[in-house]
Amino acid sequence: MSLEFDTIAAISTPPGEGAIAIVRLSGAEAFEIADRVYRSGSKKIKQVPSHTIHYGHIVDPNTEEIADEVMVSVMQGPKTFTREDVVEINCHGGIVSVNQVLQLLLSHGARLAEPGEFTKRAFLNGRIDLSQAEAVMDLIRAKTDRAMHVALSQLDGNLSTLIRNLRGIILDTLAQVEVNIDYPEYDDVEEMTTKLLKEKAVQVRGNIAQLLETAKQGKILREGLATAIIGRPNVGKSSLLNHLLQEEKAIVTDIAGTTRDVIEEYVNVQGVPLKLIDTAGIRETEDLVEQIGVERSRKALAEADLVLLVFNQNEPLTSEDRALIEATNESNRIVILNKMDLENQLDVAQLEQVVDPSSIVRTSLLSQAGVKELEGKIAALFFSGQTGEKDATYVSNVRHIALLNQAMAALDEVVVGIDAEMPVDLVQIDMTRCWDLLGEITGDSVQDELLTQLFSQFCLGK
Amino acid sequence: MSLEFDTIAAISTPPGEGAIAIVRLSGAEAFEIADRVYRSGSKKIKQVPSHTIHYGHIVDPNTEEIADEVMVSVMQGPKTFTREDVVEINCHGGIVSVNQVLQLLLSHGARLAEPGEFTKRAFLNGRIDLSQAEAVMDLIRAKTDRAMHVALSQLDGNLSTLIRNLRGIILDTLAQVEVNIDYPEYDDVEEMTTKLLKEKAVQVRGNIAQLLETAKQGKILREGLATAIIGRPNVGKSSLLNHLLQEEKAIVTDIAGTTRDVIEEYVNVQGVPLKLIDTAGIRETEDLVEQIGVERSRKALAEADLVLLVFNQNEPLTSEDRALIEATNESNRIVILNKMDLENQLDVAQLEQVVDPSSIVRTSLLSQAGVKELEGKIAALFFSGQTGEKDATYVSNVRHIALLNQAMAALDEVVVGIDAEMPVDLVQIDMTRCWDLLGEITGDSVQDELLTQLFSQFCLGK
Repeated sequence: MSLEFDTIAAISTPPGEGAIAIVRLSGAEAFEIADRVYRSGSKKIKQVPSHTIHYGHIVDPNTEEIADEVMVSVMQGPKTFTREDVVEINCHGGIVSVNQVLQLLLSHGARLAEPGEFTKRAFLNGRIDLSQAEAVMDLIRAKTDRAMHVALSQLDGNLSTLIRNLRGIILDTLAQVEVNIDYPEYDDVEEMTTKLLKEKAVQVRGNIAQLLETAKQGKILREGLATAIIGRPNVGKSSLLNHLLQEEKAIVTDIAGTTRDVIEEYVNVQGVPLKLIDTAGIRETEDLVEQIGVERSRKALAEADLVLLVFNQNEPLTSEDRALIEATNESNRIVILNKMDLENQLDVAQLEQVVDPSSIVRTSLLSQAGVKELEGKIAALFFSGQTGEKDATYVSNVRHIALLNQAMAALDEVVVGIDAEMPVDLVQIDMTRCWDLLGEITGDSVQDELLTQLFSQFCLGK
Repeated sequence: MSLEFDTIAAISTPPGEGAIAIVRLSGAEAFEIADRVYRSGSKKIKQVPSHTIHYGHIVDPNTEEIADEVMVSVMQGPKTFTREDVVEINCHGGIVSVNQVLQLLLSHGARLAEPGEFTKRAFLNGRIDLSQAEAVMDLIRAKTDRAMHVALSQLDGNLSTLIRNLRGIILDTLAQVEVNIDYPEYDDVEEMTTKLLKEKAVQVRGNIAQLLETAKQGKILREGLATAIIGRPNVGKSSLLNHLLQEEKAIVTDIAGTTRDVIEEYVNVQGVPLKLIDTAGIRETEDLVEQIGVERSRKALAEADLVLLVFNQNEPLTSEDRALIEATNESNRIVILNKMDLENQLDVAQLEQVVDPSSIVRTSLLSQAGVKELEGKIAALFFSGQTGEKDATYVSNVRHIALLNQAMAALDEVVVGIDAEMPVDLVQIDMTRCWDLLGEITGDSVQDELLTQLFSQFCLGK
């Protein structure tokens, strides 16, 4: 049974001109409201079988003026995304007509959906849990196939299952502790109880720690690896950029609803999404260091998760090169010795004294030599030994990571408490808190404000 | 009956992150190909009833790895957009997963659709004629509700009906001429024949001329009115721009598949789409004339269909103001006397000697006074006395306009030929040419290369 909500409507396809645009309607009155503006002979959406598709027109009932020629998908709850009655109006695309269809629905009984409200209803109506709802958004924002598989695995409920298992262990332990306290039939009951509590706390803590080990990679897959390409003029930065951007590898993401200023460029390197920092600057000028200025370069370096430092091995290292090495000593860095098609003039042995030899790759971006090796090095730097594990459960969401860290801290309190021989009921409080924190990940224990805040980050129409 | 084509696939929603993305598949093998990658228990798309919706997953059949959780709409031809069998795969949105779904279809029997190929098939399979196919694209690109109604009217076949009627008249006339020539039972047959030809040629020419009178407005509705806002610094250009851009009025169009450089900004003024020229420049600096330079201003003026010339009526006209009047004397111009909330220091009587008094509007952009009048003036300048005619058939397409002009010229040849007493069979040639030219509008007589060129302007997936 779904809860009774008002009926919401939104445009569910990305903004812009396209072949198809969809206006989605969900709620108890979805069919009635759609019928007010849908015309197709005497056909009524309320009367057609569920999960069927119908041709017709959307009209303004006051003037009978046509807003668009449409195909309407009619789906009765609970077998829908929201578990409510859903109508999807498949319009011709374009900005004006689809907006007019939406406006007609809004003026005839529907309310404009908030961002993420369809998914929120799927959660509130129990079709998916909170981590699955978050996976829906991650799936949409996924930048590479690996990131997509992490999201799909989470959507499938793999993370939820894992978390629920841990919560099950904690609940069983707490129940056992209660039994022991209520029926102290044995003399050593207190010792047994604290032993059990500690054992289980350590076990669950170990599982959480294991999960958190995937967090770094998970976050990279989810959010991309902020990458700066730096080097002196004419060493090949633009060639590297162009190579990375070529063909299918480049994914340009225009965050919906914002201005052109925040268009972000992602590049897919063996499943790792690189988010290129200041690429416009690189493209405009070969001379990043000189023209954009030290200040801005330092900012880019501070933001970068990965620095690709490019040298021309046809020239000896300059003082400028050395300054760049100095400036990136604290960064995850790959040193690219470019122009290997030309004579070697750079003292590699000397270079290896100041940078990690294993971080050096020799390339000829001109002839594409060494490029595969470079890509492998980038992937290995962040996913060493894990390239095969497509089905691994990753924690990728900042909210989940924070909750897992808090849950781990609560378990540490349990262990500290037991070791300090604190009363069992105080230790129980920390164990229960851990159970609550884990529940927030799946949404089993969660506050309203959190839900509001969380779903508001979704895109409109989802 | 639909012709037998191969099966095509494309992403039919606009690019970018959104709640829903659709991959469309059309052709004789659409169901078989979809079944190769669709998994939902033992359910097969080939076996489900037409026009039904089904839940499932799209997987890589080689690895059974999931690409997305989907809803699949199954529609058997001929009751579809293309008249072929169509499958629409409703994905979770996002860039990566929807691309993977498309790639799977392409590697299992489908071919990537060319831009407009779905609509082209709707045309080739006789569901719509050529002017209706073009209306599909106009509908998607419509910038205002008025433009949308012109496109919808054309999609409904109103222009086609009009053109077919004219062709019918011509064909009847040609048939009558043939009869007259073949059976010259009367003495005055030649005189009668030329009289008929001339009469009908004049009649059809009149109808075409009437249609062409709507062309200017039609083109504006379709393509927008290139509008330049000019004036000295601090007269209120930015305020005017911001007012026009405010709320629902602004439609920012990101032409699909291109870079951020060509984002165009449209503003809806009483149904007239204004395409703002060089708005970025105006926003960056109040001082368009000085900073951007005379050269660039002149270029903007040359491109402009409409010039909004802004003066500050709190100051006397300067020589710079006079230069701007001079430069825009040849343009469609509205003169805005802004800051009417302040004291009048501008000699209006003097101004009215150099600009058309009816082109002057007094505003206070600060208090919004006079703004409605300004908008009315803009609309009236291009749609005088036609504001009510929402259902009028407009010719808006450049291709149609060119063909109509050629058809009119052919009819002129008919009349000239008759007046010069040329042989009837020569006159017939011009009349037949007119019939052919009109047929090109609806696609009744049309060449392959034209079709290829025409549909290639469509967006992908339509």
